Amino acid sequence: MQSTWQEPFLYQSVERQIMEMIEGGTLEKGDRLPSLRAMRVRTGLSLSTVNQAYMELESKGVIESRPRSGFFVRRSFRRLEAPLPRPANPTPRAVNRSQLIQTVLEAVGNPSLAPLGVICPTEELLPTKALTRILNRVMREHPTRAMSYETIPGNEELRRQISFRCTDPEAAIKPDDLIITAGAMEGLSICLRALTRPGDNVLIQTPTYYCFLQLLENLGLRAVEVPSGPETGVDPADVASALEKYEVKACIMCPNFNNPDGSLTPTRAKREILRLLEQRDVPLVEDDVYTDLHFTGPRPCSYKALDNKGMVMLCCSFSKSVCPGWRVGWLAPGRFHDRALEVKATTNVCTASPNQMAMAEFLAAGLYERQLKRLRSAVEKQMRLMRGLLGQCFPAGTRVTEPRGGAVLWVDLPGQADAVELFYRAKEHGIGVVPGPIFTMQEGFDNCLRLSCGGVWSESLEQALRTLGSLASELAGTDA
Amino acid sequence: MQSTWQEPFLYQSVERQIMEMIEGGTLEKGDRLPSLRAMRVRTGLSLSTVNQAYMELESKGVIESRPRSGFFVRRSFRRLEAPLPRPANPTPRAVNRSQLIQTVLEAVGNPSLAPLGVICPTEELLPTKALTRILNRVMREHPTRAMSYETIPGNEELRRQISFRCTDPEAAIKPDDLIITAGAMEGLSICLRALTRPGDNVLIQTPTYYCFLQLLENLGLRAVEVPSGPETGVDPADVASALEKYEVKACIMCPNFNNPDGSLTPTRAKREILRLLEQRDVPLVEDDVYTDLHFTGPRPCSYKALDNKGMVMLCCSFSKSVCPGWRVGWLAPGRFHDRALEVKATTNVCTASPNQMAMAEFLAAGLYERQLKRLRSAVEKQMRLMRGLLGQCFPAGTRVTEPRGGAVLWVDLPGQADAVELFYRAKEHGIGVVPGPIFTMQEGFDNCLRLSCGGVWSESLEQALRTLGSLASELAGTDA
Repeated sequence: MQSTWQEPFLYQSVERQIMEMIEGGTLEKGDRLPSLRAMRVRTGLSLSTVNQAYMELESKGVIESRPRSGFFVRRSFRRLEAPLPRPANPTPRAVNRSQLIQTVLEAVGNPSLAPLGVICPTEELLPTKALTRILNRVMREHPTRAMSYETIPGNEELRRQISFRCTDPEAAIKPDDLIITAGAMEGLSICLRALTRPGDNVLIQTPTYYCFLQLLENLGLRAVEVPSGPETGVDPADVASALEKYEVKACIMCPNFNNPDGSLTPTRAKREILRLLEQRDVPLVEDDVYTDLHFTGPRPCSYKALDNKGMVMLCCSFSKSVCPGWRVGWLAPGRFHDRALEVKATTNVCTASPNQMAMAEFLAAGLYERQLKRLRSAVEKQMRLMRGLLGQCFPAGTRVTEPRGGAVLWVDLPGQADAVELFYRAKEHGIGVVPGPIFTMQEGFDNCLRLSCGGVWSESLEQALRTLGSLASELAGTDA
Repeated sequence: MQSTWQEPFLYQSVERQIMEMIEGGTLEKGDRLPSLRAMRVRTGLSLSTVNQAYMELESKGVIESRPRSGFFVRRSFRRLEAPLPRPANPTPRAVNRSQLIQTVLEAVGNPSLAPLGVICPTEELLPTKALTRILNRVMREHPTRAMSYETIPGNEELRRQISFRCTDPEAAIKPDDLIITAGAMEGLSICLRALTRPGDNVLIQTPTYYCFLQLLENLGLRAVEVPSGPETGVDPADVASALEKYEVKACIMCPNFNNPDGSLTPTRAKREILRLLEQRDVPLVEDDVYTDLHFTGPRPCSYKALDNKGMVMLCCSFSKSVCPGWRVGWLAPGRFHDRALEVKATTNVCTASPNQMAMAEFLAAGLYERQLKRLRSAVEKQMRLMRGLLGQCFPAGTRVTEPRGGAVLWVDLPGQADAVELFYRAKEHGIGVVPGPIFTMQEGFDNCLRLSCGGVWSESLEQALRTLGSLASELAGTDA
């Protein structure tokens, strides 16, 4: 399955043409854009399509309309460039980020803070009513099963539905290949416990989700870090060179919309990385939780779909799309199935029954696809608005990603701006953000910041971003 | 807190007197018992009290009434003696029981088998309607919280309720001392992962819950086994001698109604064992899941209540009393709280929210106490009936425990009867039982059998026990 990027909507090609004119210098700040009519003639598209493109550009803060004069490039518009990739020293090292992570997490989980910290769809976007109705029905219609232990691998109907609706068809994951877990994190924990012993090396991309670093630390594992570029993720050459130098027992990758940099590793690179790992018999633990949140184009391909040898252990969940607090996820552990099942049994016997039964009915009713559609469109829109606002109110030299899916923006602050300091100051202003250093064991991420996008725009969120911009400008020693 | 054993009901003293007359030879098989009136005079108790004692003895299969003639010791009555304790060789050994355990578990979890395998209250005894109502209300009244991630330590109100209602008051466990887990097994897994590294020795009693052996095997730990006698559990002298010979990193004990032998370690022995462990700085992981299922007398004291140094990590859950499939339990990890919290976070972030919220309301409504009362009385009654029936239809020389709580009977089959063989034959007859060898790494448990008591008596259960008795008699080479 190819993951070539396409513009599925016509208006997006108009949008791209305008952006190219601005970025190429054809249109400067304050310049008037071609009229809608002129643009219609130029592109051969309908007036309404051109109009939609202009509306989008306006909502992103790129252009503004002036009554009876047309559209103009905003004087305040700065298109933020993408952050630069950073090198990483892959020397295996013991992980010791827990203390900083703990401090950040305690703040970020605080519901009174502006929600730019935790990755979680905004409450209005969760299918709460549908799930409540379904859960109630499940308890009423199948009380005995809902009260009893599930089997260790998990509810059969749920596994069937997941196999059918929630996995890459190319991966051909069958219901019996699946183990239901209490979220994707439990899947990951099971994988590493099944594959490693304390002191072993684990290959990870950097930056990576801080919970993975915590997990390595807890299991006494050593991290071999390869760089994750904010656009194309992991470069096979870096993997090859790390594997030549160090013996590695397992590898964790989040190829599609990596948390925190949103990067998407191209299919060709995935193939090459998988081949390198196979040569050395290194299992790959794949974090797949953001793949279904792709905005446009086909679903990016998973490592699992490219795996012919059962070496990929895929971890996924409904936590980022349907119901974070229900703790329902799944693991497709390939040829490590029996070992993973044993670890699951001794972790907590099985996953909670009513939660699994209700999710199975939710999926069977076709509500997952509907939920994804709604959520993707909301998150994409919020990201665009956020990027526009960052251009207006963050200090000059700020860079930000433009991810094709997922739920985070990854920001490079300019100059000496220290993101951990910004985290503390933002917290005093009631704003939750996550600073770069907790996503890595490397140096060089002190000025990075992760902003999460729950999918809803509000005045208070806009105000929080403006405040954050001022704080960042103070730290950077520049004006926004 | 003392755990001296008392007879809380007057009729029980009458029952005991009769049993003493039978066991002492004063009354032989076929003999007529003293009339109700004579016994009233002899004991000074009311006629209805004496009558109740006779009814109980009849229900246990000890005596029978003959019309217009009075009560007689049944000719078929055999009071089964308690199984004998077995010695154990504490030499540390790698655990390798997984395969047998897996085979047994696959059969035992099969709902079409007669339920003498899995320990789980019978469906009719679970508070399903109350929990359904409460869960529905929670989802309706607090939708946002029910959909969101809980904090890592778990729902605050639930921890408050557990601290108040579900823990030994002498242990003075505060809400902030607790971490909510997906069942007690998750607590145990967290404790061992927090305390040990592969290759470490862990002191356990034998026989012990097979999942603990699986856990040791999965974590690459070595078992140092001390004997658990079927009546008084673990002898401090055995612990002292094992600790002198081997370095031990942690200890797992189920002091109250140990699964599978139902043993109750006396308070004095608990004190002594705790002192021995403290001297060597060995943390004690306490499995407390059966304590609330004590039949009579005060709640037996927990190790936690005797611990002044924070060395005891107590694991408990609602799985054996309220809702097995909901996966809600708790861990009171003493001075290992922060480490345990880190392990919980990297296991699965947090326990499911709606399940925790509903359990909090269930407790707050006072329904836990009511549920325990109902369940205890049902299980005690079933155990009595089962013991009586075993006396009638199991081969001569069979021994069985008479536990003061919990949910299992532990049976010694006579002679060469092999319990693993019995397990396979019983399975063919649609009966689920659990054979002794999966509870230990020692030799000498081949003729042991665990029978679980879900709390409800039925004709089909009686028939299953009779069939089991015939199969056991065949294997023992004797008649019932």
